[in-house]
Amino acid sequence: MNGTHILLIDCQDSQGLIYSVTKKLVEHSCNITSNDEYVDKSNNHFYMRTEFNGDIAESNLISELSKVLPTGSNIKLVKKLKKKIVVMATKEHHCLADILLKNHFNELSAEILCVIANHDNLHDLAEKFNIPFHCIPHKTLSREEHDEIIIEKIKTLNPDYIILAKYMRILTPKFVETFQGSIINIHHSFLPAFVGANPYLKAYERGVKIIGATGHFVTNDLDEGPIIAQSVIEINHTLSVDDMINRGREIEKSVLNKSMKLAFEDRIFVRDNKTIIFE
Amino acid sequence: MNGTHILLIDCQDSQGLIYSVTKKLVEHSCNITSNDEYVDKSNNHFYMRTEFNGDIAESNLISELSKVLPTGSNIKLVKKLKKKIVVMATKEHHCLADILLKNHFNELSAEILCVIANHDNLHDLAEKFNIPFHCIPHKTLSREEHDEIIIEKIKTLNPDYIILAKYMRILTPKFVETFQGSIINIHHSFLPAFVGANPYLKAYERGVKIIGATGHFVTNDLDEGPIIAQSVIEINHTLSVDDMINRGREIEKSVLNKSMKLAFEDRIFVRDNKTIIFE
Amino acid sequence: MNGTHILLIDCQDSQGLIYSVTKKLVEHSCNITSNDEYVDKSNNHFYMRTEFNGDIAESNLISELSKVLPTGSNIKLVKKLKKKIVVMATKEHHCLADILLKNHFNELSAEILCVIANHDNLHDLAEKFNIPFHCIPHKTLSREEHDEIIIEKIKTLNPDYIILAKYMRILTPKFVETFQGSIINIHHSFLPAFVGANPYLKAYERGVKIIGATGHFVTNDLDEGPIIAQSVIEINHTLSVDDMINRGREIEKSVLNKSMKLAFEDRIFVRDNKTIIFE
Amino acid sequence: MNGTHILLIDCQDSQGLIYSVTKKLVEHSCNITSNDEYVDKSNNHFYMRTEFNGDIAESNLISELSKVLPTGSNIKLVKKLKKKIVVMATKEHHCLADILLKNHFNELSAEILCVIANHDNLHDLAEKFNIPFHCIPHKTLSREEHDEIIIEKIKTLNPDYIILAKYMRILTPKFVETFQGSIINIHHSFLPAFVGANPYLKAYERGVKIIGATGHFVTNDLDEGPIIAQSVIEINHTLSVDDMINRGREIEKSVLNKSMKLAFEDRIFVRDNKTIIFE
Repeated sequence: MNGTHILLIDCQDSQGLIYSVTKKLVEHSCNITSNDEYVDKSNNHFYMRTEFNGDIAESNLISELSKVLPTGSNIKLVKKLKKKIVVMATKEHHCLADILLKNHFNELSAEILCVIANHDNLHDLAEKFNIPFHCIPHKTLSREEHDEIIIEKIKTLNPDYIILAKYMRILTPKFVETFQGSIINIHHSFLPAFVGANPYLKAYERGVKIIGATGHFVTNDLDEGPIIAQSVIEINHTLSVDDMINRGREIEKSVLNKSMKLAFEDRIFVRDNKTIIFE
Repeated sequence: MNGTHILLIDCQDSQGLIYSVTKKLVEHSCNITSNDEYVDKSNNHFYMRTEFNGDIAESNLISELSKVLPTGSNIKLVKKLKKKIVVMATKEHHCLADILLKNHFNELSAEILCVIANHDNLHDLAEKFNIPFHCIPHKTLSREEHDEIIIEKIKTLNPDYIILAKYMRILTPKFVETFQGSIINIHHSFLPAFVGANPYLKAYERGVKIIGATGHFVTNDLDEGPIIAQSVIEINHTLSVDDMINRGREIEKSVLNKSMKLAFEDRIFVRDNKTIIFE
Repeated sequence: MNGTHILLIDCQDSQGLIYSVTKKLVEHSCNITSNDEYVDKSNNHFYMRTEFNGDIAESNLISELSKVLPTGSNIKLVKKLKKKIVVMATKEHHCLADILLKNHFNELSAEILCVIANHDNLHDLAEKFNIPFHCIPHKTLSREEHDEIIIEKIKTLNPDYIILAKYMRILTPKFVETFQGSIINIHHSFLPAFVGANPYLKAYERGVKIIGATGHFVTNDLDEGPIIAQSVIEINHTLSVDDMINRGREIEKSVLNKSMKLAFEDRIFVRDNKTIIFE
Repeated sequence: MNGTHILLIDCQDSQGLIYSVTKKLVEHSCNITSNDEYVDKSNNHFYMRTEFNGDIAESNLISELSKVLPTGSNIKLVKKLKKKIVVMATKEHHCLADILLKNHFNELSAEILCVIANHDNLHDLAEKFNIPFHCIPHKTLSREEHDEIIIEKIKTLNPDYIILAKYMRILTPKFVETFQGSIINIHHSFLPAFVGANPYLKAYERGVKIIGATGHFVTNDLDEGPIIAQSVIEINHTLSVDDMINRGREIEKSVLNKSMKLAFEDRIFVRDNKTIIFE
């Protein structure tokens, strides 16, 4: 039997933390099905992720834990449920199609509320899989006006995560702040190399022998947010920029997929622009 | 500060195990620096590896733990010390040389007691690094007689592990039983493919597109012991058997190195011919 | 400009072969856009793949080449056109879905004539992408009768390749012989390990640290045909058989995709159960 | 039989180039053992590397080829011989040790003339393998003065290549110009990420999930020279900077080794800060 809840704790490290937490879970007759801890020795910070089964009053558990844990501890208790997501795209189909397919065959720990795109060419694709598709064109709008419309749309849906599945526009600070910590982007380079537009062209011009992709949380520093997952493939001189774009698709899908999975299963802590991930 | 001790527990799973163990460590004023657990749901078995700091009476801790853990629990408590190893080789230098180098520059969590080989051509190499080298030729001896001499030699040294660094002879059942669970071998294929002699020739003849290496504990079933680590590299039709042997060297070194590191740091549980490894 | 034709030659090696072939192409005013050669020194056999542009009488070129090349040379001249394929499936969707998507977005160097399956659950998926789907159930039929129906169906379509996209039945010798050299299968292990049924279960039981997939041509020796592509991913003890199946999907898709691409672009020579591939 | 010579040609692409070159080789009774070509369609440039056997007057062949190839063609003909190299190091042993070992066991297509280092701690290592070691300390010297001494030393040795095996100083323009195109460096990041000093610290601070290494020719733009080979390994949040340094060693050795092999076997063309490599 897998767990019904996930408990996420991070706090100043001190002696007996695992004991204190597991004691409370025992007292509530909870059964731990999976447990991970990590102490960052550079700043003496403790992280713990616990999956457990139990029929508990959630607020009581949090309140009791906060009494035995160090002041300033972050305690988060979530039920193991499918996350709700909004997927944003532009014109490229591959990441969106992969998400739609996985969703269709029940392989995504998420429910897709809708797809929002600034172009309409993927409308037909979303429709095949019965997912609402909203085209919000940017042509006649300022960046702020365009984002404002999208923000309002998303607010009505209240998703857990917004997935940028090759959404090729830079988000406004307001957008990023509104959905702080909930936006996941796939960037088509191994960051921090080739930040910004046209990373494959830059890779071609630099003559690198690997290309890659990076899944990360979005902050207001372009392509500088906390990294969730990265991967690369080997290339050689025979690849044109278009060849790189084609080959890159597979790794973009795969890295975005991994990043989503880790987020949807509540496996990620973010601290100081870095991620601590219990796989 | 890293831990001074490693506690390894495996037992039937039940509620509150982490709590029970950490409670004892708290009572002994031990500070956990790293902790890993795993429950194998297929057979309901619990595994836990804990690194901690503390000035403890070791036998007391084990005795107390055995009272709070399920009957039949395996409890092992080791001090974090360099392991003592004997390295066995035949004629090939690459794995032995890598071990000697790492040892020389203090990158191996082990102390090499000696090298034993059935040929003498690596004598000079071991001598460069001031490691005793014993050539025990097999030519005029039965397999049993030969192994008997080596067993006696090793018994006087009492190593924690025996590393087969491309030792190209099959060990007798007596050898394996004498040092049960302490013998690590590097096999030059991705097991279970190409068991036994000449795996690169077999790989060549089958026309595979990857070659690999496997680090495993030795049992009396040839190349069938518990696997510790495996890795592969891509190849193509242009490689001759000799090319495969050359390319394979790098991956053999790397996989053996990883296997040793995991063993020397007490990160491996073995159960039913499988390994549970906390990396 | 890319080539309009591909010339594939293999023959006994001898001096001046590249010269002889390129001389003929120059005489016909053809422009080579890409050229690869390989000599297998173990049996002194020469392979050459040439892409070129030209407005040629194909039978004339072959006839002239046969006069200047060694007796027994294999000469094949193909126009660069999309291949026609039939895709066969059972119940699993992932490989089929990937092929349908790539076809829909024009990323497959092939035209899908139809999907044939022994179950009906993927009907809806094929229909979404407007690809004919034929369910040919095997329930009441002998293996020979079932294959006979499929053979007749495929014969009317005359495809260049038959792609077994997780078709989970063993083909009869008659089927294999009828479409000799044109059937590509994806097997869900790194062959020659775990031949036959349930490779993930076998991998689980053996406790391997990698799982993989193999794309190969089908012969009458089960999972023993010439290997086109292989790849692996690392796993650990925490994966159940179902987890392996889930993770394996991605690599199965990727290896089948690579195998198809190499075949559809006429990059593969087969000789003695091995492939020579010019990537 | 492998080739005795390697012919390297690059020129403006035009029809019949392979024919023209192979015709000359046939006329000189040379037997091609391996041949590779590539046309860069972005600038219509042709590259060809040919290994062949033959007892030829080298200057005659070059002169004849220059008559049939386009004006401005680069033609280079080299005998297949071991390259002569100077290895430069600072304090880290791993890359140097790997080169010394491979040389000792005849696995390097090169002869090491000497090791030059700005510290003395690796003296003992070089001596073990009977390779001359020159310590040229930089302490009391300007960068220019220090490099001048090294330049003079190297000039007397006339090596084919200078290998920077973790030589941790920036070379002066004079040094780079003196040995233009012959200096190979290993940089401990996946360039262009983390140029310059302390790439592992920068990687740690950025929170990347991969670390890597890059082998490249040295130019006067720091870490901006033509890239020969790159590779990465996956990491996670548990690695300290020191852990990264330790793990990085293996990949640095492996990438430097690959870069050297490609250079020593004359498999690399350099053009416009990029490499065209026939593996």
